[in-house]
Amino acid sequence: MTTHRMGEMTTLEIADTVPSQPIVLLPAGAFEQHGPGLPMATDLIRAERVCAQVADLAGGRALIGPSIPVGVSPHHLAFAGTMSLSTTTFAAVVRDYLLSLHRHGFRRVLVVTGHGGNNAALTTVAQDLLVELPDLELAWTPLTTLARTEVAALDPSEVHGHSGEAETAQMLTLAPELVRTDLLEPGTTTLDQFDPVSRVARTHGQPTLTLPYDRLSKNGVLGDPRRVTPEDGEAIVQAIVQRITTFIQDWDTA
Amino acid sequence: MTTHRMGEMTTLEIADTVPSQPIVLLPAGAFEQHGPGLPMATDLIRAERVCAQVADLAGGRALIGPSIPVGVSPHHLAFAGTMSLSTTTFAAVVRDYLLSLHRHGFRRVLVVTGHGGNNAALTTVAQDLLVELPDLELAWTPLTTLARTEVAALDPSEVHGHSGEAETAQMLTLAPELVRTDLLEPGTTTLDQFDPVSRVARTHGQPTLTLPYDRLSKNGVLGDPRRVTPEDGEAIVQAIVQRITTFIQDWDTA
Amino acid sequence: MTTHRMGEMTTLEIADTVPSQPIVLLPAGAFEQHGPGLPMATDLIRAERVCAQVADLAGGRALIGPSIPVGVSPHHLAFAGTMSLSTTTFAAVVRDYLLSLHRHGFRRVLVVTGHGGNNAALTTVAQDLLVELPDLELAWTPLTTLARTEVAALDPSEVHGHSGEAETAQMLTLAPELVRTDLLEPGTTTLDQFDPVSRVARTHGQPTLTLPYDRLSKNGVLGDPRRVTPEDGEAIVQAIVQRITTFIQDWDTA
Amino acid sequence: MTTHRMGEMTTLEIADTVPSQPIVLLPAGAFEQHGPGLPMATDLIRAERVCAQVADLAGGRALIGPSIPVGVSPHHLAFAGTMSLSTTTFAAVVRDYLLSLHRHGFRRVLVVTGHGGNNAALTTVAQDLLVELPDLELAWTPLTTLARTEVAALDPSEVHGHSGEAETAQMLTLAPELVRTDLLEPGTTTLDQFDPVSRVARTHGQPTLTLPYDRLSKNGVLGDPRRVTPEDGEAIVQAIVQRITTFIQDWDTA
Amino acid sequence: MTTHRMGEMTTLEIADTVPSQPIVLLPAGAFEQHGPGLPMATDLIRAERVCAQVADLAGGRALIGPSIPVGVSPHHLAFAGTMSLSTTTFAAVVRDYLLSLHRHGFRRVLVVTGHGGNNAALTTVAQDLLVELPDLELAWTPLTTLARTEVAALDPSEVHGHSGEAETAQMLTLAPELVRTDLLEPGTTTLDQFDPVSRVARTHGQPTLTLPYDRLSKNGVLGDPRRVTPEDGEAIVQAIVQRITTFIQDWDTA
Amino acid sequence: MTTHRMGEMTTLEIADTVPSQPIVLLPAGAFEQHGPGLPMATDLIRAERVCAQVADLAGGRALIGPSIPVGVSPHHLAFAGTMSLSTTTFAAVVRDYLLSLHRHGFRRVLVVTGHGGNNAALTTVAQDLLVELPDLELAWTPLTTLARTEVAALDPSEVHGHSGEAETAQMLTLAPELVRTDLLEPGTTTLDQFDPVSRVARTHGQPTLTLPYDRLSKNGVLGDPRRVTPEDGEAIVQAIVQRITTFIQDWDTA
Repeated sequence: MTTHRMGEMTTLEIADTVPSQPIVLLPAGAFEQHGPGLPMATDLIRAERVCAQVADLAGGRALIGPSIPVGVSPHHLAFAGTMSLSTTTFAAVVRDYLLSLHRHGFRRVLVVTGHGGNNAALTTVAQDLLVELPDLELAWTPLTTLARTEVAALDPSEVHGHSGEAETAQMLTLAPELVRTDLLEPGTTTLDQFDPVSRVARTHGQPTLTLPYDRLSKNGVLGDPRRVTPEDGEAIVQAIVQRITTFIQDWDTA
Repeated sequence: MTTHRMGEMTTLEIADTVPSQPIVLLPAGAFEQHGPGLPMATDLIRAERVCAQVADLAGGRALIGPSIPVGVSPHHLAFAGTMSLSTTTFAAVVRDYLLSLHRHGFRRVLVVTGHGGNNAALTTVAQDLLVELPDLELAWTPLTTLARTEVAALDPSEVHGHSGEAETAQMLTLAPELVRTDLLEPGTTTLDQFDPVSRVARTHGQPTLTLPYDRLSKNGVLGDPRRVTPEDGEAIVQAIVQRITTFIQDWDTA
Repeated sequence: MTTHRMGEMTTLEIADTVPSQPIVLLPAGAFEQHGPGLPMATDLIRAERVCAQVADLAGGRALIGPSIPVGVSPHHLAFAGTMSLSTTTFAAVVRDYLLSLHRHGFRRVLVVTGHGGNNAALTTVAQDLLVELPDLELAWTPLTTLARTEVAALDPSEVHGHSGEAETAQMLTLAPELVRTDLLEPGTTTLDQFDPVSRVARTHGQPTLTLPYDRLSKNGVLGDPRRVTPEDGEAIVQAIVQRITTFIQDWDTA
Repeated sequence: MTTHRMGEMTTLEIADTVPSQPIVLLPAGAFEQHGPGLPMATDLIRAERVCAQVADLAGGRALIGPSIPVGVSPHHLAFAGTMSLSTTTFAAVVRDYLLSLHRHGFRRVLVVTGHGGNNAALTTVAQDLLVELPDLELAWTPLTTLARTEVAALDPSEVHGHSGEAETAQMLTLAPELVRTDLLEPGTTTLDQFDPVSRVARTHGQPTLTLPYDRLSKNGVLGDPRRVTPEDGEAIVQAIVQRITTFIQDWDTA
Repeated sequence: MTTHRMGEMTTLEIADTVPSQPIVLLPAGAFEQHGPGLPMATDLIRAERVCAQVADLAGGRALIGPSIPVGVSPHHLAFAGTMSLSTTTFAAVVRDYLLSLHRHGFRRVLVVTGHGGNNAALTTVAQDLLVELPDLELAWTPLTTLARTEVAALDPSEVHGHSGEAETAQMLTLAPELVRTDLLEPGTTTLDQFDPVSRVARTHGQPTLTLPYDRLSKNGVLGDPRRVTPEDGEAIVQAIVQRITTFIQDWDTA
Repeated sequence: MTTHRMGEMTTLEIADTVPSQPIVLLPAGAFEQHGPGLPMATDLIRAERVCAQVADLAGGRALIGPSIPVGVSPHHLAFAGTMSLSTTTFAAVVRDYLLSLHRHGFRRVLVVTGHGGNNAALTTVAQDLLVELPDLELAWTPLTTLARTEVAALDPSEVHGHSGEAETAQMLTLAPELVRTDLLEPGTTTLDQFDPVSRVARTHGQPTLTLPYDRLSKNGVLGDPRRVTPEDGEAIVQAIVQRITTFIQDWDTA
C-alpha cells in the first residue's frame, strides 16, 4: 500500500508508521454557503485536496487523518444549508482526535483548515493542550493567507474574501466540476456598498468587530468571482502546497 | 444539478428544496481498527455508499448531508490508529448538525451509522431533542442488523461480528479496492476461544457487559472474513438499502 | 447483620466485604406516568424488588447500592408528574456512583434498570469508562426484555408495551397495594389506532424513530393492562430474577 | 388514595393537585459513613421520615416527590462505602427535578436535606434558577440546625456533630432497627484531640477551612453517640417537624 | 520590594516566596447595585482594602493574589448595571486560580469575599477540590459576619443588610470618596414593609427561601444607611481585619 | 459624578446612561511572568490605563466596566506565579459579563486585552454570541499590534515580543513605579538562540505551532527590554489610544 490516507490503511499498517513519527495532517472544512456558484463543502474540498498534494510531496513523512467536515460557521447561518458547530463542539472534536492520536504514539499533528472561522477554536485547543498533553506538538494553518502574494497578483476587488476571487480560483483548479461558472456573480465589491457598521468593521481590521455575513453581503459573496481563471487558482494552490510542504520538512528535521 | 449531496449543492439549491421537506441523511462512521484486512474508515465508507444508493432510489425525497467520520470507539483504542470521540462529543456534533438543519426548516433527519458504537449516543440525542426541538423527527439506523436474514444465510462462525463475515462481505462489494483479501484472517470464531469473562458477556447478551475488543480478540476480528464473497456482500447491501428506502417512503407519505 | 443493602450497612461492614469482591447492584427507575392505574414510581419499585430477590438468591455475592429514582423520561413529559433527568445528568449520576465504588475497591457493578429509557445513557457511561476506569467491569440490564418467552405467553395486544400487559402483571405481584385495578384501562392496542407517523415508527422498529408518548397513546398506555393476573406477573418476575441470578453466578465464577 | 407520596400516585392524581398548588417536598440524603454504629443511608432516612411526618401534618398542602439518595460527600470518601456526587452533578439532578416540576405547573418546592454537605450546592441551584425560572419559589432546609435548642439541651461533647449525639438520637427514634447500639462509640470529643490544623478550623468557624473527615476523626464520628436516648431524638425530630410545618403553613398562606 | 501584592511582584520574587509557604489571599467582589448611594464595586473595594490591611499586619506571611471583580449576583440583576457570573462560571474561575497556585507550590489559600452571594459557590469549589487536590488547604471568609458584635452595636433597623448600616459604614471609612452621602436613603427597614412571601423568607431564616432583591426592596437597600458614621465603619473593619489576621496566624503556626 | 468607571458609579447613574447607548470597555489582562523586570499584572495594568485614557477622550461615549484580571496563559505556567484560566473558563467569564450588560440594554462592547493569549477565546465568544445574542455588537482589540509603525521605529531585536522592547516601553510610561529597571535583562534576541523546533515556529509564522515560553526563552523574555525609554513607550501608547478612540468614534456614529 502506498496510500497516505489513514482511513484507507489498516491498523497494522498504521502501527508500522508510529516508530518513524510521521506528521499527521487533519483536513478541516466548513459546511456553509459559498454564494450562488460554489458548493457548501468548498472549504473541506480545498483542505482535503491540498493535504493530498502535500502528502504526495512529503514522501511518507505525512499521513492524512480523518476530516472534520463541519466547522465554526455561525456567521453564515442566515444562508440556507449552512451547518455549524459551536466553538466548544468543534474544539471537543479536535481535542478528541488529538487524544486518540497521542495515545497511539503520534506527537506531531498539523490541522489544515480551509475555513478561517476555525482558526480561533484551533488556537484554544492548542492552548489548553499545552497543559494537558505537553509532549504533543500541534500546529494548524489556514490556506488562502499562505498565498498573499499570489492573491494580490489577482488585483482583486476593493472588498474581497469569502467566495470571492481567491477562493473561486482555487475551486476552479481543485474541483472545477463543482463550480457553477454560469451562476457566479459578484457580491459586495466596494466599501461604499457596506452598511455603516460593516464599513467600520472592514476599514479598521483592528479592533475586530464580528458581524454576520448576511449583513456584509446580500448573496454571501465578498469580491467578484467571475474575474478569475483556473490558472489563477493553480498559482495560489501551488504556493499554499509549497509553504505547507516546506514547513513540514523543516519541522520534521528540527 | 441532479446531485443529492448537500455538500455539492449551493445554498440557493438547498433553499429550493426546503419547501418540499426532503429527508436529510447523515452518514456516520467510525475510524477504528478493522483487523488486518479492512481499512480504518470501513464504517464510514459503508454508510456513505449505502446513503448514496438510498438517495438515488428516493428520487429527490432524500438529501445527503455532511458525514461524521469519527464515532464512538473506545473499545477499539488498544489497536493502533483507532480514533474515538467521547459519547458527549459525538452527541454534541450530532446535535449541532440537527440544530443547523432545523434552523433552515428541515424537520426530518435520518442518521445512517455504519458503526454500532454510535447507537447509544444517537439515542441520547434523540431523547434530549424531544424536549428541545419537539417538532423535529429524528430517526437513526445501523446497517448490518437490517439484514439479519441475509447474514444468517452466510452461516457465519459461532462467534462473528466486528470485521467478520458480514462486514467484510459488504466491503467486498462496496469498496473492493480497499480490502486486503490476502491479509484477511479469522479472529475469535468460537466461544471457547474467549477468556471466561468475555464468554459470559457473549453468551448472555443481556445483562449487557461492555468489554474492550483487545479482550475479545487478538487481531480485532470476530468471525472468519475469508469465507465470504462480493456476492454475499451485495445481498446484504441490497437488503439494507431496500429496508432504508422503504422506511423513507413510508415516512415521507405518512 | 445479614442485609445486602449497603444503605443499611455501616462503613465497617462494607469495608469487610471488599476483599471478597461482591457484585454491586444499582437499581435505577423512572418517575413517570404509567397510565391511570399504575404509580409514577413503577419502574423503580420493580427494579428494587427484583434486586432484593436477586441478592437473596446470590448468597452474599451481591450487594444492593443506592437507587437512582429518576431516569431519562423526556418522552413522557407531556403527562403530569413525570420527572426526567437529561441524558447527561443521568450519565453523570451513574458515573459518580461508579467512581465512588471504584475508589473503595469494587470492580463489578450491575445496574438494574426498570426503565428502558435509561438503556442508552447507561451504554454511554459504559463506553466512556472503558477509557477512564479500564479495570471496572460494568454491566446493565433491563427487566421485561429478559422475560420474552413469558411475555409472549400472555398473548398480549398487537401493540403493547409501556404500562401494558407485562408491566402491569409485574406490579400485580410485586406491589399490588399500589395498583388501581379498578382504574386500569386499555391504551393503544392496535396499529391502526396510531397516527401515520407513529405507525411507521412502530412497524419498522429499525430505523428507529423516537416519538413522545402523548403521540403514541392518549392515556399513556400501550396494550391492555386489564387482561393480566398476579400469576402472570409472577412468571415474568421469576424469569427475570433467574436470568439475572444466573448471570451473576457465571460472572462471579469467571 | 390519601398518600402524599407522588411516587405512589398516578399521573391523573397528580394532575388533579396542580390547580391547588401544593408545595413539593424533595428529600435529599447522603450515602456516607456514619461511624461504626449508624448506616450509610442515615441522612436519607432522616430526611424521608421527617418529610412523611410533615406531609401528614400539612393536610394535603405538601406532596413528597422523589428522593435524592446520594449527596455531596467528598469529605467522607476515605471511609469505605461512601458515595458522592460532585457538586455539579448534584446541582444538575436538583435542577432537572425542578425543571420537570415547573413544567407541570408546580411553583413551590422545598428540598429537605438530611446532609449539610448538600447545602452549598442547593444554594447555587437556587441562585441560578432566579434567572432561568423566575416564577419558581425554591426553598431548602437542613434538619438538625432547626433544633438548636433541643440539641443544646443534650449538653453534647465539646466537639460534636457528624454521627454524634444529635444525629444518633434522631436515628434512635426514626429508625432504631438500623442502629447498632452495641457498636456505638465516641469519636473526637474534645478540641485537644484534633491535629493543629483541624483545631484551627473548628475553633474559628469563620474563616471556613474545609477538611476531610478522616483528618477530623479516626472513626468518622464527632461527639459521643452513646450518651443519647430515643426520647432525646424524639424531642429533636418534633422540633424539626414543627419548624418545617410552620414554614409551609406560613408560605402557603402568604 | 516590600509589596505583598503578587500582581506587582515579578516571577522571580514570587518564586522566592514559595519555600516559606505564605498564605495567598484572593479578594472576591461583586459588581452589583448598592442602592442610590454606594458604587457597584462596593464589595470588591471592601475585600481588596481589607486584604491590604491584613497583609500589612501579617508581616510577609500573606500575599495578595489577583482579584475576582464580578461575583454571583443573580438576585440583583433587576437593577441596572449589575453583572453576574453563573455559579458554575464563578466556581471555574476560583478553581483555575487555585490550580495555578497549586502548580507553583502554594498550598494555603484564603478567599476573602466582600459578597455573601459567593459563599455557596466557594464552598462547592472547596468540596470538589478535596478529591482533586487533597494537599491544598482552602479557606474562605465573608466580611461583615465576622463583626457581628460591632454591627449589633449600631442598633440597626429591624430589617438590615445589603447596602444598609453595616455596609455603608465600612465604605465610609474604606472608600469615603465613593459614597454619595447626600443620596443615601433608607430601603426596607421593617418586616411589615415586605410583601407576604418576603416576610416569610426573612422571618424564618431556615428553611431558606431565595428571593430576588427587587422583591425585597424598591431601591435595593435593606436598612437605613444614613444612620452610620465613618467611626462605626472603622470599628467594623478593625474587627474584621483582626479576626482574619488571627486566623492566619493560627493557621500559619499550626 | 464625572467618572466613566462603572464600578465607581451607582446603579441609578448607570441606568441613566443606557438610553444614550454608550460603548462599554472591558479591560482584560493576564497574570503571568514578565521576566525579571516587569510585574505579573503588566497586561492588566496596560489595558486598564489605556481604557482610562480612551474613556477620557471619548467624552462620555465610553464607559469602563469591570476588569478580567487573569487571562489565558498556559504557555507561561512554567514560570512561578503565572495564573491561567482555561480557554473555556475565560470565555465563560466574558460571556457572563456580556449577558449581564445585554440584559440592561447595552448593545456595544469593546474588550481591550493587554494579553494576546486572550485573542482566540475572545473570538470564540464573539462567534457563539452571533447566534445567541444577535443584536449585540462585540468588538475586541489587542494593544501592541495597534502600534506596528511605532514598534518598528524602535528597531527592535531580531526576535522580540513578550516582555521585550515594546511592552517594557509601555510600562515605563504607564507604570514606571512597577518596573525594576535595574533588573531588566535581554532574553532570546536572535533566531539562532532558539532550539530547532522553536526556530521553525518563529520563522514560519504560519502554519502556527504553539510552544510554551520556557522553550522559547530561559528568562521568559523575547527581545532586549534595556534598549527603550519612557518616550518610546509614550509614542506606542498614544498610537494605541488614538486608534481605539477613532474606532469608537466611527462605530458610535455609524
